Order: sequence, then structure tokens, then C-alpha cells
Amino acid sequence: MSKIRHITSPAGFVAAGVKAGIKASGKEDVTIVAGLRDCDAAVVTTRNQVFGEPVRYVRSVLPKGCGTVRAMVVNSGCSNVCTGAKGFADAKEMAAIAAGLLGTNKGKILVASTGIIGHRLPMDKVRSGIKAAAAALSRDNDQAALRGIMTTDTREKYALVQTRIDGKLVTVGGMVKGSGMIAPSLATMIGVITTDADIAPRALHQALTEAVGGTFNAITVDSDTSTSDTVAVLASGQAGNKRITASAGPGYAKFAATLKEVCGELARAVVIDGEGATKLVEIAVCGARSDAEARVAAKSVADSPLVKCAIHGGDPNWGRIVCALGKSAARVDPRRLRVWIGDVGVFARGMPLKFNVKKVQRHLAGKVVRIDCDLGLGGGCAAVLTCDLSREYIAINADYHT
Amino acid sequence: MSKIRHITSPAGFVAAGVKAGIKASGKEDVTIVAGLRDCDAAVVTTRNQVFGEPVRYVRSVLPKGCGTVRAMVVNSGCSNVCTGAKGFADAKEMAAIAAGLLGTNKGKILVASTGIIGHRLPMDKVRSGIKAAAAALSRDNDQAALRGIMTTDTREKYALVQTRIDGKLVTVGGMVKGSGMIAPSLATMIGVITTDADIAPRALHQALTEAVGGTFNAITVDSDTSTSDTVAVLASGQAGNKRITASAGPGYAKFAATLKEVCGELARAVVIDGEGATKLVEIAVCGARSDAEARVAAKSVADSPLVKCAIHGGDPNWGRIVCALGKSAARVDPRRLRVWIGDVGVFARGMPLKFNVKKVQRHLAGKVVRIDCDLGLGGGCAAVLTCDLSREYIAINADYHT
Repeated sequence: MSKIRHITSPAGFVAAGVKAGIKASGKEDVTIVAGLRDCDAAVVTTRNQVFGEPVRYVRSVLPKGCGTVRAMVVNSGCSNVCTGAKGFADAKEMAAIAAGLLGTNKGKILVASTGIIGHRLPMDKVRSGIKAAAAALSRDNDQAALRGIMTTDTREKYALVQTRIDGKLVTVGGMVKGSGMIAPSLATMIGVITTDADIAPRALHQALTEAVGGTFNAITVDSDTSTSDTVAVLASGQAGNKRITASAGPGYAKFAATLKEVCGELARAVVIDGEGATKLVEIAVCGARSDAEARVAAKSVADSPLVKCAIHGGDPNWGRIVCALGKSAARVDPRRLRVWIGDVGVFARGMPLKFNVKKVQRHLAGKVVRIDCDLGLGGGCAAVLTCDLSREYIAINADYHT
Repeated sequence: MSKIRHITSPAGFVAAGVKAGIKASGKEDVTIVAGLRDCDAAVVTTRNQVFGEPVRYVRSVLPKGCGTVRAMVVNSGCSNVCTGAKGFADAKEMAAIAAGLLGTNKGKILVASTGIIGHRLPMDKVRSGIKAAAAALSRDNDQAALRGIMTTDTREKYALVQTRIDGKLVTVGGMVKGSGMIAPSLATMIGVITTDADIAPRALHQALTEAVGGTFNAITVDSDTSTSDTVAVLASGQAGNKRITASAGPGYAKFAATLKEVCGELARAVVIDGEGATKLVEIAVCGARSDAEARVAAKSVADSPLVKCAIHGGDPNWGRIVCALGKSAARVDPRRLRVWIGDVGVFARGMPLKFNVKKVQRHLAGKVVRIDCDLGLGGGCAAVLTCDLSREYIAINADYHT
């Protein structure tokens, strides 16, 4: 039986996910992804001003967002957010325990936690979980490691892309969790990416920052930016490519494109698994005065509950799209604006077009909906992925109790 | 049988609402509110860059937002938005017909339309409706006039407040429609306010602008700013107070406070009638670096689908409140932040407090929920009214078809 591999597919990594009893469900809840040796690493974390103690710890270990890392330890079931100095000590202890077991120091261990806010970690369970995970590290546990970072996720979300740099095969693998409270501002809730590329930390950080801009930072399930968003990438260097040391040149470009492809696949998977989502919605805006304005306009449409409800109901409601564009901080002139749903033009020169309603309804009935908006004012472009808004979202989030 | 009066309660006004066949439901859909003579008037309209042709017409008639007005004509069932030059001509014709019937010129008639976007007005029905309404103008038709401006509203929303200026009784009455697509940016969808105060147009405009800031502009049902938001106030001057000509002095202050009270009651009624709403939620933020930042922070909480779902479910989920504050553009320091639900402190110094969960749940089970946040950073304060987010909102907006 062939094993599914993603984070241990690049050479030089092992992983494990174990059931430590933190989650009420009894499923895997402690995960370690480790390099066989020290790795070059980069990390991006949430822009929410309220952020978890694990985020604080990661920033203390990698103040510039990059450096040398041996492993990342993640637990689910409790996010260690709003837990004060004791919570920070817990995050540090998680790193210290893992460091001891892996024969390194705690400054080379990243930590992340996801789950309920405002509760201390059950450290007895966390400690024994980290020990069990360290003992189970192998190249056969990728899916258990992935389940160990999941919370309300209903799908296992991972990606694997290969490229060739200097004639050497380079692999980038990644896994991600996230379903609600998704409007990442730097990263999605938790993502772990590995690669065997040989790349220096600063170049790796640059590639990661570029990659998240158009991927994790361009998705929204419910406009709520989490307190725990963290995406880390570890590079073992075992692919044998000529070490990439600058954020320029063909080697860097190939690696950055591959990393972005992995981030893009993972981000897309998060939206598809959005709470209550039944459709993936791509909103592309071009013709804005700048890329930044295009993104603001696309986000305004993607976060509009009225647009999301209309898509859920299969209604070609171009009016709500135009309204959401108009309320945004981006410059919009309805007389220059053009809007398409699927490949059908529905709005131009300030007015609705006569369009084939049945054709648009057929498009809206599918699993992937595409909305294109041309603001007609400049060369700025951006795309945002979102999902529809369903009764199920309300059920999940009104019936969830802290 | 005593009649309900609001817009004709101030001396010098008549009103009517008639069934013109524009709405499929067959209910009232053309309304006129008229002064017996020319009135001083002020108007505020949507900040959405996509705005209706009636808004364009109102701006052409009152380019500074104030002047002399005889009457306002409103239709529901069709908003005359995204209808181009022909739609503008329709709006102008509505004004011209009413002006002819009332013996004035079309520059003294305000118009507003609400309902579906992107359809031309059925002008035959509009013409005969305006004629019928003009013939029915009286002081006994306030409720019919109110029904004539309603769309998805489930409640008749009006307000009446009196004060004494220079020893004279001054009355301000108003009615409003709005239920979904409510995050007004200058005004709610359509509000008509009358007063018998004697006040000059510029002072009236100043008072209206001040009033909407903390009322219509401080509510949100679903974060979607409409294309048709219009609030107008007409002053007949028949109360006999000394004419208020400047936006200062005791007469102005009393009038402005009274107008704000009417706007506040109407805004509150809009939120209570929010689509799918089961609770009114007041979010007050103090201790911000400025009033503007307080408002941004309060809006971030009020627009958070996760917070709104938690309130709907009766869950004391302070974590989502803190998360929504943290993601906002306002400066937030979790260590200085304090949060109360009802009068129970739930968060302070970066961590949850031990609180009486049952007591908070009892508060959340009520019809009015209050959340107070002290950012602890300065003297800026603001409050925003919103409602909870329910399956019913999705039902209304996913099953609605254009």
C-alpha cells in the first residue's frame, strides 16, 4: 500500500501525529514535522493585534521571520491565545521538550497551537503527546501529522509540487488547516511546508512572503482574521541545487514559483473547506488604479454577505456585486465598470446587459463560480478566493459553544 | 379612532401612500410627503460610488445638500439604480409630475426609489400612482405613506419627538425603511423627516449631518452599503420659534438634539428589523486613541459574522470579540483591553476573567445585547448598533431572486 506523502516527500524530513487527548474527539492532536538535520526556515504570522502565545514565541525565536530551524511542533484542540505569561511559558516548554528529544536547543523549534481561545494548554497531555510524536517520527505518518493540526476542517488539505533547479529535482510539500475565522492577514491559520531545496533563510523568507500575498492573503471565508495564523517553510537543502542566496536569479524564480504553487493549492483547499461552503468563488478584478485597489475591491465583493448568499442561492445578482464594488475604498466609476459571471457579461456602461440568464444560472449551479470585474481605470489587478454563505455556516458558528 | 401620525404631526405637512401596482405584493408603493408651502430642507445621500438615478437627481436639485423643497416623492418596488440616462429622465419626470400637481416647479421636488436594482421604473404605474397620491394628500395617511416606502421591512418604523424652543412647541417626526443591505454611509436606505421648526437650510443640513453620524451611520445589518441611501428633512417653520439661522446657540442645540433623537430611534428600528435579526446588539467602544478609531473597532466587531453567530447562539464567546477588535485598523493592545458582555466583565489584562457564565448567557438570551470594550489607550468613544446573524438572513438572501 502506497503511503500519501506531502511534508516528508522532500528529502530530509520526518513527521508524526499522535492522539494526546487534547481534543474531545479523541483524534490526533499533537504533530511534529522535523528535519533530519537543521533546516533553513522562514515563517509568517498573523497581523491580528491580538495574537497567540505560540506566535509570540515564534517571533522571539525568529525575530526577522527566518533563520535555522530543526522542527515545528503543533497541537490542535487549544490555541493558547489570551493566556498571558503562563501561556507563553507553555509555548516555550513545548519547544524545550521537543528540543530535548531531538537533541537540539529550543531556539530551533517552532510551535503553533490551534483550537479554542482563552484556555491554558493541558500541559500533561501536551508533554506526553510531544514525547509520543517524537518517538513516532518517520516518513510514513504524513496523514496522521496532518490530522494532528486539524480542528473544524472536514478535508485533509495538502499539496506537493516538483520542479527542476540546476538540473536537480526539487520538491515542495505542504499541509494546512483552516476552515472558519479565515481572512488571513499574512498567512492562514496553520500551514507547514517543507522542501529539499537549498536556499538561504532570507531568500526563503522573501519567497514565502511573495507566495502568501497572492495565495493565503487572497482568500476569505468569513472576513475574520484569526489570532493564530502561522505558515512556516523548512528547507533541508538535500536536493543538491546550487544554494540560492539571493531573491533574484533563475534558481530563486523557479523555487519561488513552485512555493507559490503549493501555497496556492493549500489556500484554495482552505476555501473549498470553508465552514458551510458549497462553492468555491473566484473574484478577479482588473482595470483598477493599482493592484492594491484591485485587491480592496475584490475583497469587498468576496466579503459581502449579500453576494455570498446570492451565489449560494444560484441567483445572477449582478446588482449586489456592483454595490459591493461601489462601497469599497477602491475608486470605482460605474460608467467604466464591466462585470462578468462565468464568461457571460452582465454589466457595462452603468447598466445591466441583456444576458442569457439560464447560462449564468448553470454556471452558478456549479462547484466553482467565477466573477470578473474590469474597473476600466488602470492596470491594477488582483484575485481573491472565497466561498458562498450558507445556513450551515450559521449552524456551525451559532451552535458552537465556548 | 385615533390616527397614528408621525410625518404629518409637525404643523404644515400632508402625506399619502397609494397602491400603484409596482410591487408584486400589491401593497402601497408610491408615497408623497408634502409641505403645505415651500419648506427649508436638507438631505444626505449614500457614499456608495454606485448610486441610483434618484440620488443623482436629488444632488442636481440640492447640490449643497440643502435648499427649498415642497415635497418628496418615493416609490418602492424598483430602485431605479443602474438604469443610465433614461433612468435619470424617469427620476426627473417623477419630480415634474408631482410639481405640476402641487403647483410648484420640479426643482422643489425630491425623489427616492427603493427596490430591485437594474430595472427601469414602470413609468405608467408611477405616473398614475403619483396622481393618485397627490389627490389623497392629507393628515390621515401617515401609515399608508410609510407602507409605500417599505420593501423587505417587516415592521413599520417611525418616530416622533417634541421639544420647546423659545417657548414654542417644536415637533420632529420621521419614518424610515430598511432591513437588508444596511451599513449606511451617510444615511439609511430611505428616511423622511418633517418638522415645524423654523430653521434655515444650512443650519438644518448641519443638524442632519451631525445627527446621522451617530445614528444612521452607526448601524450595520450586513456591512453592505446600499446604492439608494437617502434621508431628507423638511422644515415648515410653522412652530413659530425664532428662525434658527446658524449652527450654534441654544435653539440650534435643542433642535439638533431632537433631530438626533428621531434619527436614533429610526436607526434603532432599522436594526431591530434587520433581515433575520432576533436581537439588537449595541457595541460600545471607549478608550480608543480617537473617536474615529473607536468607530472602526466597534464596526469590526459589529460586522464580524463569527461574533454575530455567537450572539445568535447565546454563546459568551469573548474570544471572537477580542479577535475582531484585534483585526481592525484601530490600535488595540490586548494587555490594556477590557471587555464586558452585559454588565459582566469577561476579559482584562490579555486574558479572560473568571465570570458568571450563566449570568452572561441570561443576558445573551434577551432581545437586547450590549457589549462594552475599553481599549485603555485614550479618550475616543463610539457605539454601533447591529443585530445577530441567523439562518433566516441566509434564507432571505439566498432564496431572493433578481
